[in-house]
Amino acid sequence: MTASPQERPRVAPVPPVSENGAVTVPSFELPFSSFASLEARSAFTARLRATVQMLAAGAAVADIATLRRMADTGLKPALDAYTTRYPYTSTKSKIGNVPVETFVPTAGIVPGNEKRVLIAIHGGGFDKGGGGVGGAVEAVPIAGIARVKVVAVDYRLLPEHTMQDAVDDVLTVYRDVLRTYEPKNVGMYGCSAGGAITAWAVTACMRGELPIPGAIGIFCASLHGFVGGDSAQLWPRLGSAIRMLAPADGNLPRNPLDPTAEEMQRFPKALFLTGTRAFDMSGAVQSHLALRTFGVDSQLLLFDGMDHGFLVFESGVPETRQAHELIARFFAERR
Amino acid sequence: MTASPQERPRVAPVPPVSENGAVTVPSFELPFSSFASLEARSAFTARLRATVQMLAAGAAVADIATLRRMADTGLKPALDAYTTRYPYTSTKSKIGNVPVETFVPTAGIVPGNEKRVLIAIHGGGFDKGGGGVGGAVEAVPIAGIARVKVVAVDYRLLPEHTMQDAVDDVLTVYRDVLRTYEPKNVGMYGCSAGGAITAWAVTACMRGELPIPGAIGIFCASLHGFVGGDSAQLWPRLGSAIRMLAPADGNLPRNPLDPTAEEMQRFPKALFLTGTRAFDMSGAVQSHLALRTFGVDSQLLLFDGMDHGFLVFESGVPETRQAHELIARFFAERR
Repeated sequence: MTASPQERPRVAPVPPVSENGAVTVPSFELPFSSFASLEARSAFTARLRATVQMLAAGAAVADIATLRRMADTGLKPALDAYTTRYPYTSTKSKIGNVPVETFVPTAGIVPGNEKRVLIAIHGGGFDKGGGGVGGAVEAVPIAGIARVKVVAVDYRLLPEHTMQDAVDDVLTVYRDVLRTYEPKNVGMYGCSAGGAITAWAVTACMRGELPIPGAIGIFCASLHGFVGGDSAQLWPRLGSAIRMLAPADGNLPRNPLDPTAEEMQRFPKALFLTGTRAFDMSGAVQSHLALRTFGVDSQLLLFDGMDHGFLVFESGVPETRQAHELIARFFAERR
Repeated sequence: MTASPQERPRVAPVPPVSENGAVTVPSFELPFSSFASLEARSAFTARLRATVQMLAAGAAVADIATLRRMADTGLKPALDAYTTRYPYTSTKSKIGNVPVETFVPTAGIVPGNEKRVLIAIHGGGFDKGGGGVGGAVEAVPIAGIARVKVVAVDYRLLPEHTMQDAVDDVLTVYRDVLRTYEPKNVGMYGCSAGGAITAWAVTACMRGELPIPGAIGIFCASLHGFVGGDSAQLWPRLGSAIRMLAPADGNLPRNPLDPTAEEMQRFPKALFLTGTRAFDMSGAVQSHLALRTFGVDSQLLLFDGMDHGFLVFESGVPETRQAHELIARFFAERR
């Protein structure tokens, strides 16, 4: 590659590299993505500065009850924005012992979608984001744009319960939904922890001899946990809101809930969606590549400059609206 | 997000951020991608060290004839490897004034593919990689795996000619191919400069009222030149073989050969494929997202830890073989 012959390009120095492929990166100034919106740029700066303030206020060492309240408070502005933009009615109920909230857009369910339903599995690091705000903030925009019914699952959380309990709760809801809907007309999606649980729920369907849902959306997550690859090493250092670092060798214990290679070959139509500044990007890239290699109908959408969870938190940036519209369209496609 | 409760994660410090979203990244050690192969890791280290030696030998200031010889010499080991792996016969000819080389796999064209042909448009920064080695190294693996005829175009190069001349040469070959093949059965692909020319050729078809080809592959490139977004700022500093830096604001003059938004909506089925360490990744991500938003049947495949042009240069790494197989499968799909 050369630049156009008119201009003399600036050239970066070659960084030192060790035998094991590790590069010593010099300090440098990284501008915000030239492809992202000005709104996204402002949101990025604001969030990074808020993180510094939160750390100063001691958020990193708060107890779980406080962290849960803070998570709900943090999501409230986004939920308010989505509620104004996508009016809905909702009902809270229990399926077995699992609390759910069912969302129906005020504009009504679009013809053809009466036979369809989506199950929304909220994020929040497996230990936060349950109940009201966490489920609604991810269900409301998709229900409103897709004009479809969405059932948000208030699954059991860590540390009081296990990840297996969370998966069991999703399957309890899914089994109930299957009394009314055909499996191919059920979609399942989640962001962050919710994306991981989505992958585990599909795997649990196979192991429990339940039919798998027709389509799944895994946002800001992957089939095998979050950490691994370049993005997990890079973005915590470069300004992601998620600053935890994986071990340098990327070797984490395998989670028994994760799908095996054989199970991945039987995965349904899948959409991976995240930002290029998310620590989970490499995981999403790798999961999508593996599914495509197995011949599964998988799609990958990345938003340049966007961070982990942008489509939940950043209600004011155009990238979020575009993401919600593409998710709604994905679930609306014939299958 | 939190880590599993058993372990105490390492946490990266929050880097300083300025009002315009620029982050001051501290120096750090970046391990090689935990998702990439050991062969890819060795190739990365070897290439980075070779770059240091080449710079010491003065390659950056060599004249164009020397650079072209060096490019051919650099590609020869990969071509030898592909020739052993995917035996072929080839014939050189001229279509109008355009030299081409037509490749047929020794194993024969697979039934169903007699009606199909692929046009390969080599890379090399618009000014290198023509003729023998450059065309063959990108045509041979795809011809061999897909078991299909591939015509490699030896288009005119910069600085003696223009990018428009290169596009004209591709269209001369395409027009000739259309005398024998239906447009929907013609595929067109290229890596790096060849990927950009592929996008321009489709655009030129629309402007010249030629039917567009059925499917295109744009590898290590995008619809709108190479530079822009995060990857163009990041990877030249982090160890990519391509160390040219775009202007920090990412604003480059629009190339009139690029497709307009209206033209992008009429694009054929497309595959974008590159590595996450390639400076072109953000461009590919952005082009794919735009096509999907317009409803075009676009696919995106990223290989974690791989650099610009890996599928041409790195004949010994499993990621290259996987990429070639996925490209061959893409063109084999019904359309």
